Amino acid sequence: MTSPASAGPPDPLLLEDLVAANRILAMEGVLDGWGHVSVRHNLDPGRYLLSRSLAPELVGAGDILEFDLDNEAVNGRGRNLYTERFLHGEIYKTRPDVVAICHCHAPPVIPFSVTDVPLRPLYHRAAFIALGVPIFEIREAAGMTDLLIRNAALGRALAVSLADKPAVLMRGHGATIVGPTLQRLVARSIFLALNATLQMQATLLARSGEIRFLDPEEARLIEAREGYGLGRAWEAWKRKALKNR
Amino acid sequence: MTSPASAGPPDPLLLEDLVAANRILAMEGVLDGWGHVSVRHNLDPGRYLLSRSLAPELVGAGDILEFDLDNEAVNGRGRNLYTERFLHGEIYKTRPDVVAICHCHAPPVIPFSVTDVPLRPLYHRAAFIALGVPIFEIREAAGMTDLLIRNAALGRALAVSLADKPAVLMRGHGATIVGPTLQRLVARSIFLALNATLQMQATLLARSGEIRFLDPEEARLIEAREGYGLGRAWEAWKRKALKNR
Amino acid sequence: MTSPASAGPPDPLLLEDLVAANRILAMEGVLDGWGHVSVRHNLDPGRYLLSRSLAPELVGAGDILEFDLDNEAVNGRGRNLYTERFLHGEIYKTRPDVVAICHCHAPPVIPFSVTDVPLRPLYHRAAFIALGVPIFEIREAAGMTDLLIRNAALGRALAVSLADKPAVLMRGHGATIVGPTLQRLVARSIFLALNATLQMQATLLARSGEIRFLDPEEARLIEAREGYGLGRAWEAWKRKALKNR
Amino acid sequence: MTSPASAGPPDPLLLEDLVAANRILAMEGVLDGWGHVSVRHNLDPGRYLLSRSLAPELVGAGDILEFDLDNEAVNGRGRNLYTERFLHGEIYKTRPDVVAICHCHAPPVIPFSVTDVPLRPLYHRAAFIALGVPIFEIREAAGMTDLLIRNAALGRALAVSLADKPAVLMRGHGATIVGPTLQRLVARSIFLALNATLQMQATLLARSGEIRFLDPEEARLIEAREGYGLGRAWEAWKRKALKNR
Repeated sequence: MTSPASAGPPDPLLLEDLVAANRILAMEGVLDGWGHVSVRHNLDPGRYLLSRSLAPELVGAGDILEFDLDNEAVNGRGRNLYTERFLHGEIYKTRPDVVAICHCHAPPVIPFSVTDVPLRPLYHRAAFIALGVPIFEIREAAGMTDLLIRNAALGRALAVSLADKPAVLMRGHGATIVGPTLQRLVARSIFLALNATLQMQATLLARSGEIRFLDPEEARLIEAREGYGLGRAWEAWKRKALKNR
Repeated sequence: MTSPASAGPPDPLLLEDLVAANRILAMEGVLDGWGHVSVRHNLDPGRYLLSRSLAPELVGAGDILEFDLDNEAVNGRGRNLYTERFLHGEIYKTRPDVVAICHCHAPPVIPFSVTDVPLRPLYHRAAFIALGVPIFEIREAAGMTDLLIRNAALGRALAVSLADKPAVLMRGHGATIVGPTLQRLVARSIFLALNATLQMQATLLARSGEIRFLDPEEARLIEAREGYGLGRAWEAWKRKALKNR
Repeated sequence: MTSPASAGPPDPLLLEDLVAANRILAMEGVLDGWGHVSVRHNLDPGRYLLSRSLAPELVGAGDILEFDLDNEAVNGRGRNLYTERFLHGEIYKTRPDVVAICHCHAPPVIPFSVTDVPLRPLYHRAAFIALGVPIFEIREAAGMTDLLIRNAALGRALAVSLADKPAVLMRGHGATIVGPTLQRLVARSIFLALNATLQMQATLLARSGEIRFLDPEEARLIEAREGYGLGRAWEAWKRKALKNR
Repeated sequence: MTSPASAGPPDPLLLEDLVAANRILAMEGVLDGWGHVSVRHNLDPGRYLLSRSLAPELVGAGDILEFDLDNEAVNGRGRNLYTERFLHGEIYKTRPDVVAICHCHAPPVIPFSVTDVPLRPLYHRAAFIALGVPIFEIREAAGMTDLLIRNAALGRALAVSLADKPAVLMRGHGATIVGPTLQRLVARSIFLALNATLQMQATLLARSGEIRFLDPEEARLIEAREGYGLGRAWEAWKRKALKNR
């Protein structure tokens, strides 16, 4: 297969922010050595940017490759690629509103992926959860597997499960989160995990009592403000994450 | 609107302590990238000091601005301000005893803001909780909102809910803590969160059994000692927090 | 009152180890800014060594003072002393077997001090708990107080509650741990807290089921080996704790 | 007893990886000051490599000794040895498939060692747990002891309990994990502890509900992929763990 032609060099600031996103999410414990985060190319919505196969905390600008939506690397030159890159292309294909995608194994979300307790938003920064966070049960799509999104068909199945939602939990595995910008993706990934922790604690505390979740209208109003201005936290996260390069 | 005249340069040590307070509370996990902490101006009780819009861990002396109690910045020169600054002025107006205010999203207090389990003091350093920690339900004040204290009316509603208490939880959002000095405010903010964690653990442990909370008289005696001399911990917190400037 | 005469300069290695003990226990989260740790003077069992009033993480050799068992400082020269120093002298008086004492507010032990669930050893390194860990209820000794051990009478009451045990929990406040050597005291303090955490988790897990605690004879055999050779962990703890002086 | 002859100098990369394994597992909180990790000698399956008695975070290449399967050190020159080294030789004798062994006291696994709740895999990276993780009850093998594997007979009893499984919990004490390579051993040790934490959280969340564990066939497929390529995480772990040498 011929390597696709490049859409051209991406905006250097976008590259820098993608490196920062990798390192912030590793620093915050959302990404372990195997997760990954991508962003759509600023010059061509039919391309996305993603690191070669590398632990997120080690990713630098020189590791970022360009991919087409069939998950072929432009000028990959034989470098190792993430096995699960298929989920990126398949989601970008079906979700023109999505600009950035994170696949993670954040520990606090795992218990919600293996029980019947739905993750629901109780914390303002996690208001996007009100839009719905389905659970992807890979057994329904493909029977017995090793749980990884190893090909385009599984990528499509995950995209179908995600549908028009901001995130999908993957049973026994992790989550895939999408966002309209890279910064909002990073915030959503962090607060998906924090809301999970807080909901476990509220469950312990409430026992048979009730938990007051966000009202859908409250959540809509928060989301309408773009999750409140993220620049303030982004500046601090990015500075700290890039300090130790 | 004309910028109000300055009450004069604040005590440099107060400025340094306000910077330290920002960094200590970030270091201790009480403040995330969006919380803020203010102190009343030492020259004029009608003024308070608060950073421009900036993540607390990044705040330096040059970022601190002077505000009047209507939350107008003196010589703001177009710098971005915290959206929720209104809560500071409105509380300072109604609480002459309050010298410092912290607005935070400390995770351990959130579960108590969304359940019917009252936060109660079981740990000596959190004795101030015995004075009462109400929950501010913004729906009662303003119906459906994005939960932020975006204007003076919401600031007043929060001040009414706080009343004469040392802290108020904000449902699904965080907490606002007040103190008679900056150091006691910092300690209260840290121990509000620690008591929340300990109460969740005691709840798990006690099951149907009882938890022995502080007696109101014990709490009164602890508070009468000004929460015990805080200087010892303050010295260590401040040194560590300012080391990495 | 005349300052007592000194028993002479203590062994420099003992001083270094006392500094290390302060910093190790701060590093491990057992000591906050207010806890303290003392050791009996190597030249005179009627004297003990303890820092002036200072957060443990900041303690250096120059901060260590000599005290008699009535808690009078030798050559204190007006330096501030820990309010609760009385517990050290009163325990040393009644417990000739005790060589070192730690007073801490380690969070995981607090829930056990305010519920009726007895702390019991389930982890081998916490075998000493099998010897018994009573709870000191200061209300029984002195009615309403601010919970601090502010005088010799309260120190004696705490010593009576401790009796011949290795540790005593202090309701709503913390714990006081004793040891036959400084190193074993440090290990006991760390593993008292760890066992508390593990017992809370086992309680969650076991629900109505049983927890298999250490058999008293197992605990005796572990203690007879002096808690197993501690030198290996001590070397690592001390190196790390003193690195950032 | 004569010291056995050496099988020759081990592969320097194997030595470096063994040092890394010690430091990674200390960094990740799996190994405390007393755990240890060994690997079979690359030149002779009848020999294994293990540090002299030293806290894992301090281990360097010069501390690694060669042992025969009777746990005699080659050229030990009187250096202190780990008391529990017996478990290494006895497992290597009965398990030719085992290339590396870790003995740890990872806190999250302890509650599962003292309750009747079986540790089961719910997280993809912990699929090996589906092969079975028995609990070693030392009382059944040897009555009242101090819980340590102090001799070859206890080492054999532990090996019998481990049988052909990837790990064995040791009641009130810790766990021993084995692996077909050093890297997979490290990953298994980390994810044994993580799965334990996640299972405790899922238990809290599910209450009387069900937890969806990995299907045995899913676990088999994951293991067949060698636990997925570990190189990516290994590179990041190793770099971080060796940075502070």
